[in-house]
Amino acid sequence: MKIAIDAMGGDHAPAEIIKGAVEAAKEFGIEVLLVGQQAVIQDQLKSFKNLDSMVSIIDAPDVVGFDEHATQAVKEKPRSSVMVGMRLLRGKGVSAFVSAGHTGAVLFAALMTLGKVHGIQRPALGALIKTQQKPVLLLDAGATTDCRPYYLVQFAYMGSIYMNKVWGVENPRVGLLANGEEEIKGNLLVRSTHQLLKQAKLNFVGNVEGRDILKQTVDVIVTDGFTGNVALKSLEGMGESIFSSLKTVFNSNIQFRLAGLFLRPALRAVAKQVDYSEYGGAPLLGVRGNVIVAHGRSQSKAIKNAIRLAKQTVDQGLPQAMMEEKLWLNQ
Amino acid sequence: MKIAIDAMGGDHAPAEIIKGAVEAAKEFGIEVLLVGQQAVIQDQLKSFKNLDSMVSIIDAPDVVGFDEHATQAVKEKPRSSVMVGMRLLRGKGVSAFVSAGHTGAVLFAALMTLGKVHGIQRPALGALIKTQQKPVLLLDAGATTDCRPYYLVQFAYMGSIYMNKVWGVENPRVGLLANGEEEIKGNLLVRSTHQLLKQAKLNFVGNVEGRDILKQTVDVIVTDGFTGNVALKSLEGMGESIFSSLKTVFNSNIQFRLAGLFLRPALRAVAKQVDYSEYGGAPLLGVRGNVIVAHGRSQSKAIKNAIRLAKQTVDQGLPQAMMEEKLWLNQ
Repeated sequence: MKIAIDAMGGDHAPAEIIKGAVEAAKEFGIEVLLVGQQAVIQDQLKSFKNLDSMVSIIDAPDVVGFDEHATQAVKEKPRSSVMVGMRLLRGKGVSAFVSAGHTGAVLFAALMTLGKVHGIQRPALGALIKTQQKPVLLLDAGATTDCRPYYLVQFAYMGSIYMNKVWGVENPRVGLLANGEEEIKGNLLVRSTHQLLKQAKLNFVGNVEGRDILKQTVDVIVTDGFTGNVALKSLEGMGESIFSSLKTVFNSNIQFRLAGLFLRPALRAVAKQVDYSEYGGAPLLGVRGNVIVAHGRSQSKAIKNAIRLAKQTVDQGLPQAMMEEKLWLNQ
Repeated sequence: MKIAIDAMGGDHAPAEIIKGAVEAAKEFGIEVLLVGQQAVIQDQLKSFKNLDSMVSIIDAPDVVGFDEHATQAVKEKPRSSVMVGMRLLRGKGVSAFVSAGHTGAVLFAALMTLGKVHGIQRPALGALIKTQQKPVLLLDAGATTDCRPYYLVQFAYMGSIYMNKVWGVENPRVGLLANGEEEIKGNLLVRSTHQLLKQAKLNFVGNVEGRDILKQTVDVIVTDGFTGNVALKSLEGMGESIFSSLKTVFNSNIQFRLAGLFLRPALRAVAKQVDYSEYGGAPLLGVRGNVIVAHGRSQSKAIKNAIRLAKQTVDQGLPQAMMEEKLWLNQ
């Protein structure tokens, strides 16, 4: 299996991206294609031995910065790593493309190059949230900020298919993110969506609140990309805040420091729960190709895990299964 | 100072509400009026000694349940504790009214009985979020789920006045909750609001993300009531999840248990950060009276703190100051 990686995208590109990609190639027995400025990548690869044919470079001289306007940058830089990677994917040169670059640029490049799945109105970024057992998929995590009710219904279908195929969840439970559990709760969008979801061929269990996201009462949580993004970053912010306070406590005196050291393995397990790098990436659902968006702050571990996720998705026959699906055509 | 308390509202009403109110009366030297079913309250009060004139009962025979339709219940039950409390407040029989009851009912009763501050289009519930130093005020936390840009601008003005008067923050920094820091980020509502906020007579510092809510980079965070509610409950959910995992770790073996016991005082300090009962309540801004909405799950400590907050608000001359303000009339 060949997977392309955007070597230039992300806060820690190219070093951490390349490191993660090399590790993934070795560990998962796949071939990785590093897309980016050839000379830069070549230089970085010098420190790795025995790569043989596991790692190759695809030159992409342009770079899209985080401060650039997404659509403009993508249009004006057809030889950026994001665009070169997408074209590889479209031409079936690779089975998946992973990028930790500018999310807006990745999204726009995917729409421009791959196009949407037949019948799907808008793409959605699916965030995999770690819980005690299988992950919960929250979508949209930021691809489509302004949504209509039937976009959310399509997100629910795509999310259900994804959780079923890739994570083996039978008849995934779908929840609608709202400001209360009762059917009458929600803004206009949510109240309309609730009624549509009740009629859909889905295992819709009703509204869920921000507090329920981590409780595994559902497998798929649908929301617009604006709210989803705010909710995810709020979860993340609280996790960071608590662990930073705990660190301060453990460093406040020598006894606490010792207790902290003793508890470290157990605390690590708790910290894993709030670690975005655990799955490494978010599948972009609704486009005609296997695109995984990694966190901008990704380091090698996150990139390796994002590539694992890409492989797993390909192994389970996505996005082909999604492209052949007709569930949303009659809505 | 006289403050009315909804004795029948909340998951732990009436026992915990009454306990909190009695403690508040003793500790803050105020007079509390318990509003609710007389016989029930009388019975509960038997267990307290030496109340003298600190605590009195205002009979309100009707009760609004959490599963009732807010507007309907308020209309059909004029003698509910919520409505009786609001009428006391309107008639200046009390300086503030605190309720842990059905938020929708409290909101609707306030609008019906007190009315809105001159020029304010929609009320907002201001959630006080605990950080290292002074709280951050996030509004709207759930009063107005569908907003227009100028509603959010009014929330920003009200929030700034509140943080200045009640919490002594000079020139409060205002942030707009969004899915990215850049000006072009946001849904349609947020992008329009951003432009209006730039022109307003406010210390507007730009967009803030979910991750920044706890970072104290701003004093006031404005958002629509739907998003605000989801964000707050997400923060809460992550806090609960981490502390529940920590508890599991500490109980997993005897050594960890001892380490946990040893660390307890320090952990308590960290836990306080995620404890909604720390401030006890959320001020309802934009109505012509001092209404504090307490969390439905409030126990006596939260109620006591909500009453403290009500007293503090009255001491600092709100909502009078807000009612005399003209800032939003020329927008």
